[in-house]
Amino acid sequence: MCKVNDNYLKLQGRYLFSSIGKKVAKFKENNPDKKVISLGIGDVTQPLAPVIIDTLHKSVDEMGHRDTFKGYAPDLGYEFLRSVIINGDYESRGVDISIDEVFINDGINSDAGNIQELFSIDNKVAVCDPVYPVYVDSNVMAGRAGTYDKATQMWSNVIYMPCTPDNNFVPDIPKEIPDIIYLCFPNNPTGTTITKDKLQVWVDYANKVKAVIIYDAAYEAYISEDNAAHTIYECEGAKKCAIELKSFSKSSGFTGLRLGYTIVPKELKCSEVSLNPLWARHYGTKYNGTPYIVQRAGEAVYTETGRRQIKKQIDYYKNNAKVMLEGLRKAGYSVYGGVNAPYIWLKTPNNMTSWEFFYYLLEKANIVGTPGSGFGPVGEGYFRLTAFGTYENTLESIERIKKL
Amino acid sequence: MCKVNDNYLKLQGRYLFSSIGKKVAKFKENNPDKKVISLGIGDVTQPLAPVIIDTLHKSVDEMGHRDTFKGYAPDLGYEFLRSVIINGDYESRGVDISIDEVFINDGINSDAGNIQELFSIDNKVAVCDPVYPVYVDSNVMAGRAGTYDKATQMWSNVIYMPCTPDNNFVPDIPKEIPDIIYLCFPNNPTGTTITKDKLQVWVDYANKVKAVIIYDAAYEAYISEDNAAHTIYECEGAKKCAIELKSFSKSSGFTGLRLGYTIVPKELKCSEVSLNPLWARHYGTKYNGTPYIVQRAGEAVYTETGRRQIKKQIDYYKNNAKVMLEGLRKAGYSVYGGVNAPYIWLKTPNNMTSWEFFYYLLEKANIVGTPGSGFGPVGEGYFRLTAFGTYENTLESIERIKKL
Repeated sequence: MCKVNDNYLKLQGRYLFSSIGKKVAKFKENNPDKKVISLGIGDVTQPLAPVIIDTLHKSVDEMGHRDTFKGYAPDLGYEFLRSVIINGDYESRGVDISIDEVFINDGINSDAGNIQELFSIDNKVAVCDPVYPVYVDSNVMAGRAGTYDKATQMWSNVIYMPCTPDNNFVPDIPKEIPDIIYLCFPNNPTGTTITKDKLQVWVDYANKVKAVIIYDAAYEAYISEDNAAHTIYECEGAKKCAIELKSFSKSSGFTGLRLGYTIVPKELKCSEVSLNPLWARHYGTKYNGTPYIVQRAGEAVYTETGRRQIKKQIDYYKNNAKVMLEGLRKAGYSVYGGVNAPYIWLKTPNNMTSWEFFYYLLEKANIVGTPGSGFGPVGEGYFRLTAFGTYENTLESIERIKKL
Repeated sequence: MCKVNDNYLKLQGRYLFSSIGKKVAKFKENNPDKKVISLGIGDVTQPLAPVIIDTLHKSVDEMGHRDTFKGYAPDLGYEFLRSVIINGDYESRGVDISIDEVFINDGINSDAGNIQELFSIDNKVAVCDPVYPVYVDSNVMAGRAGTYDKATQMWSNVIYMPCTPDNNFVPDIPKEIPDIIYLCFPNNPTGTTITKDKLQVWVDYANKVKAVIIYDAAYEAYISEDNAAHTIYECEGAKKCAIELKSFSKSSGFTGLRLGYTIVPKELKCSEVSLNPLWARHYGTKYNGTPYIVQRAGEAVYTETGRRQIKKQIDYYKNNAKVMLEGLRKAGYSVYGGVNAPYIWLKTPNNMTSWEFFYYLLEKANIVGTPGSGFGPVGEGYFRLTAFGTYENTLESIERIKKL
């Protein structure tokens, strides 16, 4: 008789964004005359850059001719893409990454969810609070999170590291020693980031206690300030303790195209075993590669024209963030983030809970945001807005919020 | 201190096809003058059909304009694709599948590897022998396979169901009762298939013992004979016990484009729990959707033009299979399959082992095939050739083999 994986049954409610999607769909159905603006899910709105469109057309044509048709991609991705990544994202910052340390995937989400498979079930996981839900949920599904306590909204076997205005949203080293540490900088959801010096403290700590850091750098392209780390490997010793996840989604508008990569350094060991060949085995067994045309599109991002066009797009969203920060401050809100990341993290007014503010904003201003409590208990009383809307919608939302 | 998932360390050697790839690369390096023909990995060689190319261009253009740009796809896939799948692959065969039972993915491999996550670690898995390696390997990685015995080449906690000429390569019901049963028809690697009547026996058995069947129908488009099942849901009661995996890779040449789907019927329960919402949660958490342009390409397959163009391509490969079957028979080989599937399964001559024949064929005829023993212990003494080569290469290989 087949038995279910009952860890799946422990998951709390629906996945956050699916849940919000359903609520918004219902509101729209009941209010067909209202123009709802979404600053909720972090999805881009600008079309793909011209050079990416051209490259896609060119590589689609290749797929239509026998001599240039491409079947299965190499397990870890095409070398043409992996080499421009190394050159553009690492060598340029003085970081030495070799080609077989780069794993091309279909966006950060799959690897962020699956990377925990490399580790034994009895490892203790530490996450920031608030946190991107996939880190915790994927560990719940694997049976690593323990039991959920409804009162505290915490899993018994997860170490929560509060990120608040008091610590500038950079977690302190926890009292209990973790085995796996998830860090995301620039941060989703708080929109803040970490300096290279502070990240070095985490790297040194991980090496000392032999923990592995899973470093999500999906928003790296939004960094504006000089002292922030663009990759964890800028820190000394990081190749001995850290896996880095990167994405084309938010830097190049690939949310609907799907492309990302994971760096697993060969020096990185766990139980005296190098994780790089194990992750290669994971790819070889459970993944059949990212579409050729999408990998070519990724390559185009690193051309001179690509860089220029992409920068324009990032500047567009950064300007949205600026407009939001200024407008919300004028409206009397306490706001954080938005300088090195496309997210604004705001304190809800009048001690509203995050969900109260969600409904308030949806009903009174027809704006969709994300309740901070959806990201963890410390997110209660906070709210996330994204800068990924159009400029016009962003302006309009701020005007609507000012009028509340 | 971080501990590794030591189930990964139990895996035997490299993944079969990665391993063959390395050996062939080495041979080519040492023999740059030799024209090596690959009939090894089941990768297509014909370019994408014109209607797919046109659709890709059109949808790429949509991604380049603000009004038609698409970001994240819906969790389970776009409805435009899911509805043509239901209509084309199920309604047309009298099978009633609802839209929220269809999960669009990036090809069969990811779901074939991940689907076991839905089940508890202490389930007993049954597989055909020989078998597509992903089923067993993904269960090894999850810790469900027990220990490996080098002498028998078997995992202690896996039930192996021999498929040989004696049972026409359709497994008998095993003596020990399994909890999860992997079936693949038309079969990879043997190239044979199952009749609807015999599949009904398996469905009835699974319902009786409350096992779940994971039915891989990746090669369904190659069925030529009337009495074969095109989907397991043609069998009565299958929606209560079976998950079906389908792929566009081999039917429509999508190995480099990546598209497939999984059917998880809402009626299917395990430990009294419906698996459909759990799999939806898996998608919502660990997968961020298949590229919009690829989903549009999949939709094009179901148009009248699409069907006509795809049929021509399948007929091309089927003709290769026919040429191979006839040629190999003339050359004195015992051959199986090739009628309802794009694979030929042959008995190695002179009692060679599968790997002996691999090197013999590579060195003497410069042809790459796949050693049967790579698919399981009963595959020893057999060899797989694919019909996915070009017609010219297929003809040439057969001539080379005849001359041996």
